[in-house]
Amino acid sequence: MTYCVGTLVDQGLVFLSDSRTNAGVDNVSTFRKMTVYERTCDRVLVLLTAGNLAITQAVVSLLNEDAADASAATPYTATTMADAARIVGAAIRRVYDRDAVALKEHGIEFSANFILGGQIGHEAPRLFQLYAAGNYIEATPETPYFQIGESKYGKPVIDRVLTPAMALDDVAKCLLISMDSTLRSNLSVGLPLDLAICARDALRLSRRLTVGEDDAYFRTVRSSWSAAMEQAFHDVPGPSWD
Amino acid sequence: MTYCVGTLVDQGLVFLSDSRTNAGVDNVSTFRKMTVYERTCDRVLVLLTAGNLAITQAVVSLLNEDAADASAATPYTATTMADAARIVGAAIRRVYDRDAVALKEHGIEFSANFILGGQIGHEAPRLFQLYAAGNYIEATPETPYFQIGESKYGKPVIDRVLTPAMALDDVAKCLLISMDSTLRSNLSVGLPLDLAICARDALRLSRRLTVGEDDAYFRTVRSSWSAAMEQAFHDVPGPSWD
Repeated sequence: MTYCVGTLVDQGLVFLSDSRTNAGVDNVSTFRKMTVYERTCDRVLVLLTAGNLAITQAVVSLLNEDAADASAATPYTATTMADAARIVGAAIRRVYDRDAVALKEHGIEFSANFILGGQIGHEAPRLFQLYAAGNYIEATPETPYFQIGESKYGKPVIDRVLTPAMALDDVAKCLLISMDSTLRSNLSVGLPLDLAICARDALRLSRRLTVGEDDAYFRTVRSSWSAAMEQAFHDVPGPSWD
Repeated sequence: MTYCVGTLVDQGLVFLSDSRTNAGVDNVSTFRKMTVYERTCDRVLVLLTAGNLAITQAVVSLLNEDAADASAATPYTATTMADAARIVGAAIRRVYDRDAVALKEHGIEFSANFILGGQIGHEAPRLFQLYAAGNYIEATPETPYFQIGESKYGKPVIDRVLTPAMALDDVAKCLLISMDSTLRSNLSVGLPLDLAICARDALRLSRRLTVGEDDAYFRTVRSSWSAAMEQAFHDVPGPSWD
């Protein structure tokens, strides 16, 4: 499985992904699920992937091959973020056309989910979630985030604290807490993590980090969130049934 | 969907279930998912159900019909909790034998999950989870709880705070917080809730409550947990990336 989350707030975009893939519990590997398309001062796009690894790698690979072809539409040629979402959607459909029949023969579902966010030129930052059919939805202030993969464990904390007015570093903190809740409750999600922050109008990655087991800040988040949750539990009054 | 959780701690057992069932988002109803088998000073058993409502109701109904038959094995005749788990498992298999073929014809999976906990006579309290196949597992001190239904949203808080040494009222608080996280993130789980507490060796329900929208204590839990979570988030230090 996988857990990836992308957020769009007033100050920009924050993305976080884990790196575990598994085909059964005895076939666990580490694959990064974040791809960045960046041309400084022009655009920065971040693509997160979840689902069947052969499918999601094929989509990313197609986009990379196209990037070498001057006549092809790619995240580097897209004129808007919606245009980029359509280009990624078209790549998903090309992989579907190529592989879906063979996968079906083997009883394998065409399972793939994507989060695409970023900023191109003067357009405001935007965030999309793409489905296996190549169609997509866009984040709005009411729902400023998308999750793909093993999303349920880490959803309550996001639902409670994330707001569009939040500073990017606080969003990063929120996503790391959400990931920690997921890591604790589900073995199919694992370190290292990829964290990317794109400040509005920077048109480049403001920060990209790989967060491993020995990352000092993530260790602080884990231990202090654990202590804070225990405190929070004690702060809720006990029952007075009568 | 549904969310039910049962816990076994040193002081006894606590159970919590929601009451929402849905067949699609436009066919939502309220059905209680908690059944109690109680004979004061002799035994108290609590059965929680999740899955296909026709199947789980059929199982409970069979057990109730048997209770009227002096020669039948029922939760009231079981000599131990493991015996009771086998009796419930046998009822699940009888429903399977009767309905599974017809359900399969209609493309409907035989989906049913059960939590059974309680205490019979001098035996210590025990807690079981039963599967659609009628087989079961038993809780141990390392994993003193079972969840069925929409379990992921409410799992992180239980994983962090529940311990076997916890007082029954604190366990109830923990389960209500877990349920609140689930209610906030998932529409297929809904009020009212059924809460049951069985103190060790009481051999009767120590407390049984229906918790509705206007329940004063649950409102306190919801608002103070929300405030405590926000405080917990602020208590975690912000990132210092360098």
